[in-house]
Amino acid sequence: MLENLKIGILGGGQLGGMLLRHAIDLGLSVSVLDKDANAPCARYTSSFFCGDPKSFDDVLAFGKELDVITIEMEAVNIDALRELEKQGKKVFPSPATIQVIQDKYTQKQFLLSHNIPVVPGIAIEDKNDLVKHEDKIPGCLKKRRDGYDGYGVMVLKTVADIEKAFNAPSVLEELVDIKHEIAVIVGRNEQGEVKCYDPVMMVFSEEKFVLESQVAPAQLADGMAEEAFAIAEKIADALKLVGILAVEMFVTKDNKILVNELAPRPHNSGHHTIEASTTSQYEQLLRAILGLPLGETALHLPSLMLNILENEALRSDRQEKFNSLLAVPGAHLHWYGKKGSRIGRKVGHVTVTGSTMEDILKKAETIRKILN
Amino acid sequence: MLENLKIGILGGGQLGGMLLRHAIDLGLSVSVLDKDANAPCARYTSSFFCGDPKSFDDVLAFGKELDVITIEMEAVNIDALRELEKQGKKVFPSPATIQVIQDKYTQKQFLLSHNIPVVPGIAIEDKNDLVKHEDKIPGCLKKRRDGYDGYGVMVLKTVADIEKAFNAPSVLEELVDIKHEIAVIVGRNEQGEVKCYDPVMMVFSEEKFVLESQVAPAQLADGMAEEAFAIAEKIADALKLVGILAVEMFVTKDNKILVNELAPRPHNSGHHTIEASTTSQYEQLLRAILGLPLGETALHLPSLMLNILENEALRSDRQEKFNSLLAVPGAHLHWYGKKGSRIGRKVGHVTVTGSTMEDILKKAETIRKILN
Repeated sequence: MLENLKIGILGGGQLGGMLLRHAIDLGLSVSVLDKDANAPCARYTSSFFCGDPKSFDDVLAFGKELDVITIEMEAVNIDALRELEKQGKKVFPSPATIQVIQDKYTQKQFLLSHNIPVVPGIAIEDKNDLVKHEDKIPGCLKKRRDGYDGYGVMVLKTVADIEKAFNAPSVLEELVDIKHEIAVIVGRNEQGEVKCYDPVMMVFSEEKFVLESQVAPAQLADGMAEEAFAIAEKIADALKLVGILAVEMFVTKDNKILVNELAPRPHNSGHHTIEASTTSQYEQLLRAILGLPLGETALHLPSLMLNILENEALRSDRQEKFNSLLAVPGAHLHWYGKKGSRIGRKVGHVTVTGSTMEDILKKAETIRKILN
Repeated sequence: MLENLKIGILGGGQLGGMLLRHAIDLGLSVSVLDKDANAPCARYTSSFFCGDPKSFDDVLAFGKELDVITIEMEAVNIDALRELEKQGKKVFPSPATIQVIQDKYTQKQFLLSHNIPVVPGIAIEDKNDLVKHEDKIPGCLKKRRDGYDGYGVMVLKTVADIEKAFNAPSVLEELVDIKHEIAVIVGRNEQGEVKCYDPVMMVFSEEKFVLESQVAPAQLADGMAEEAFAIAEKIADALKLVGILAVEMFVTKDNKILVNELAPRPHNSGHHTIEASTTSQYEQLLRAILGLPLGETALHLPSLMLNILENEALRSDRQEKFNSLLAVPGAHLHWYGKKGSRIGRKVGHVTVTGSTMEDILKKAETIRKILN
């Protein structure tokens, strides 16, 4: 059975690479589609296809010999996935789920229709339309589609910022008075079994909206974790999710939770589950889409995850920096092996585990110094 | 640096597969040589070569574009590895180390020459020679080369058993009065840094000499773990090892340690390090051969590892058995995805982790029932 199934992933970046890491545990055969022949996944499967996950023809051709298809990015061709589903392929998460989520405005409307608290926001057609909504500025402008790692997001502080704004369909959100940003990853399988990971606390770099680090478990006021679980589970059920879903949330200064964004795939905010949980988010995704029981999500170690962004210091002295980093006890390096990375690009991450949070924070400080 | 290195593994079985799993963490490019086009590793690299690790020509051709070469089995062509070393490739463990270990008699002589206690044994040429050594029976007969998982090992209880004996160069060992079988995995890098994992307690199936299960950490009398560490480190230094080495040892009823066998590569007795240690044996091997600092070896969870041998019950009802197994909290399945496995073949393993050894033993009993 497992060894005869043909599984496919749309997207071949580091999230796909980590998914392949866990596919090895189940002896699976996995094909990968990515438009970059040097994508991280290209090295780790005998079945890599160079093609565009956003192209109808490429996705259809990729899927035709597969049994189960999943994603490591939302920007994929929905029509091709629907066609593959019609042909009897299992597509998880479903094309309907991906479609709702891949557009940030549709996503927000879906959540509102299920009475889930979200950051208030309006749809914006283009720059001209933005001018008509000057009264909503200051606000946070997000492209409806294809944003990632801070690309496609900007804060409009004053009306003067409209000049620099995207001329693309966007969502203009209210600026919320945020105490914390947290995320919960929830898994759900075809049988409707649902399991959440503990909330993580996320720290973003201010100017770029890239996740700088995160701590798990998040230290929250009493009852907040339970509220976050309830929201995540409600969304998973509403979406009839099969797979995993990252639910990014704001905790406001008056301890209200608002959903910020969803991602129906492995997510940065779940990297630590490789080292800190019994079941990683990657294994959970595989269990969910293969109809297997979901795995235990409890964290057995506290952890802190640091993203590594390419920088000059790192580029010029990589060997020495890796040597120093790997000598830190409990530092787990995940280096994505991207070729020719531009400055500022996410090129790896480090998960630090230890016995106490204090110990971990100290090690993280050491690692930050090494990496910069 | 790391992403530009070309690494090669001789052998593409499950040990190679788990090594690839950890190579993903460092973004490495790994080529694999195996004579079976359906070997587990064949699916998990874009650079799989079908050829015989024992063939001079195949190994030489495989190695010519590589920077660093390692092994997941001892039965490899030493002459080709020496030639590759001459060409400036890094071959770790060194051809000299592999050569000493791949012949069980040479291995024993090497250990004796370094005053390391071993199971007493003599070299046997062939069946005729065995007849001349009837006085050494009962004893344990092991082929000098190419044994694995109980193949190439038999107990000669009486002289009558000679008839069934191998007609091949072998070692005839004394039968030792064993209390425990334990193993220590030791890592050593080029800089001479050495680190041991805690001893594991191994339980073998009586008739077949296949590892049935193992528990980590082993419960040993005071001072025995330290003695085992000292032996493992002494051997690693004597071999000038670069890589990892499994040292299988007997603890006799009077608490003496005798070295049974060595394996200079990832080993069954280190499977649990994936889930139970900060650094897995696979990552440790990669760190050692890439000149990186060795990782922390401490176990952060107690664990029990069960080998899965193909059997009729498992074959006829695989999906249902996997469903039951994966519903056991803390059960980590490693399924090797071997195609067309014969009955009795090692097809996977399960590592069970938990908070207490009692809890783990109970879960292991459940899993044994599921798998048989």
